[in-house]
Amino acid sequence: MGSTWRKAKVVLGLNLCVYVPRTMDEKDDDESPEVLRCGDGDDETLPLLLYNFSRHEIVGIVTEVGSDVTKFRVGDKAAVRCMVGGCDGCDDCKNGLESYCRDTIFTYGITVYSPLKYYGLDRPSLSVGVVGLGGLGHLAVKFLKAFGVKVTVISTSPRKEKEAREGLGADAFLVSRDSEQMKAAIGTMDGIIDTVSAVHPLQPLIDLLKNHGKLVMVGAPEKPLELQVFPLLVGRKLVGGSATGGMQETQEMIDFAAEHSITADTELIPMSYINTAIERLLKGDVKYRFVIDIANTMEA
Amino acid sequence: MGSTWRKAKVVLGLNLCVYVPRTMDEKDDDESPEVLRCGDGDDETLPLLLYNFSRHEIVGIVTEVGSDVTKFRVGDKAAVRCMVGGCDGCDDCKNGLESYCRDTIFTYGITVYSPLKYYGLDRPSLSVGVVGLGGLGHLAVKFLKAFGVKVTVISTSPRKEKEAREGLGADAFLVSRDSEQMKAAIGTMDGIIDTVSAVHPLQPLIDLLKNHGKLVMVGAPEKPLELQVFPLLVGRKLVGGSATGGMQETQEMIDFAAEHSITADTELIPMSYINTAIERLLKGDVKYRFVIDIANTMEA
Repeated sequence: MGSTWRKAKVVLGLNLCVYVPRTMDEKDDDESPEVLRCGDGDDETLPLLLYNFSRHEIVGIVTEVGSDVTKFRVGDKAAVRCMVGGCDGCDDCKNGLESYCRDTIFTYGITVYSPLKYYGLDRPSLSVGVVGLGGLGHLAVKFLKAFGVKVTVISTSPRKEKEAREGLGADAFLVSRDSEQMKAAIGTMDGIIDTVSAVHPLQPLIDLLKNHGKLVMVGAPEKPLELQVFPLLVGRKLVGGSATGGMQETQEMIDFAAEHSITADTELIPMSYINTAIERLLKGDVKYRFVIDIANTMEA
Repeated sequence: MGSTWRKAKVVLGLNLCVYVPRTMDEKDDDESPEVLRCGDGDDETLPLLLYNFSRHEIVGIVTEVGSDVTKFRVGDKAAVRCMVGGCDGCDDCKNGLESYCRDTIFTYGITVYSPLKYYGLDRPSLSVGVVGLGGLGHLAVKFLKAFGVKVTVISTSPRKEKEAREGLGADAFLVSRDSEQMKAAIGTMDGIIDTVSAVHPLQPLIDLLKNHGKLVMVGAPEKPLELQVFPLLVGRKLVGGSATGGMQETQEMIDFAAEHSITADTELIPMSYINTAIERLLKGDVKYRFVIDIANTMEA
């Protein structure tokens, strides 16, 4: 089976999320409705490589289209989210929430946009905190500012204050290790989006919420966290999760991002730089995402 | 200062929640807009005693009304929720959510009704679990059935199945210690209301939820519970809390209960039985709530 994606100029990136059907990799090329594809079979090692390298999507220029293609022409920009294995039959798939079906891959823009919409944290009068200023966090700040929300970045590192305020336009900054600062902010936030994947205490964040406030987790600590129930009761607060979003909402997110000139801050690297990039990722030394220029630095 | 509540025939109970203003106990009797009152001062020891005995409300027949009383006449049934100390000024008080202001007392009917409404678990097409079949749980089943929801009672004790199904009309029953039963029910529920105050694992309950499901805590375990974040993410699930409700919603709850003939199952006891009742409560030996007949068994 041919691998049509190899004919496309492909760049790993964040900002374009125009979809091709998830079912493509189950069909012959001639029947493929779109030319870009995300494979998970033996013949399609590049997407697998990319998937294994980092949660990602592939962005490129369409260089060839099949006879059934209606959404794309040669020369269009398109993105493949490697969303394979959606069943198309369950309630989630039918409701455009196929990302909650099995075998999905997380992406960044939609991973913060979707929960802000779902949990109602997208209204101008609100005050919302963003925990962690990384790939997810910096996009959360940008979307929240575009919604007109008052944004407070919450970080362990005081060194990030300048970047948060001046670089991203955050309205306030809290050092989570500064108990005085945290105490002064108790009960001030309508919601918090927590992007941190390291194990960390939830209660100081729950304390920052007003009554009826929502702590939304998008980072996934490996070990269970401690949850005190009583503070949830007396403040009618909640701790919720969210993971990426469906095709429909991702298209909405992209349209919103285009309208408000929201882009991810990225650093373009050649394929040969991957090992160094991984080392830098582990040290948190990236603002805020690496993009691999595959088309110009790797031959299929 | 006189204690007008002593003039009312007072019975501790659950089912009537018609309110008198919280601010009454700050006024002279002559200025009191209603005759029933809940005091927390030195002169008003009975409400304090009742409060200390159990979370409660006082229900009685109005025997006297002040000149400003507009809602009650002598002979009316009325209930005082001992909701003292609401500030009347914060957003919650202004929005009829004064129960989230300081110094409130939990009650049972509204404690299950309010979260079912707030978290959207009151729609006929839904499937909702109720954990724990006690004072809160049995009312949750009754309200859910009145909403038209499919109800599954989840209990550690298989002995409660008959009562759950035949006594309360539950559609299904799960023994939480039976791993086969629990496994078979994974991903089947839109929501769960958890009334258990003992420390217990949350993950088996979260597993029972469908994607986008909601686990609502109304019991308050003393120690923190373990919360696994990843399952919340991949299923966009949430763990929320709720505590009682405001006056407006409690009136709505009472009206709904009256319309659907929902009453709490109670056992009427004389004041002299209190110590035995407490012993029985500790053993879980009550269906489902003790009511103290103060008017006939205790002199003020």
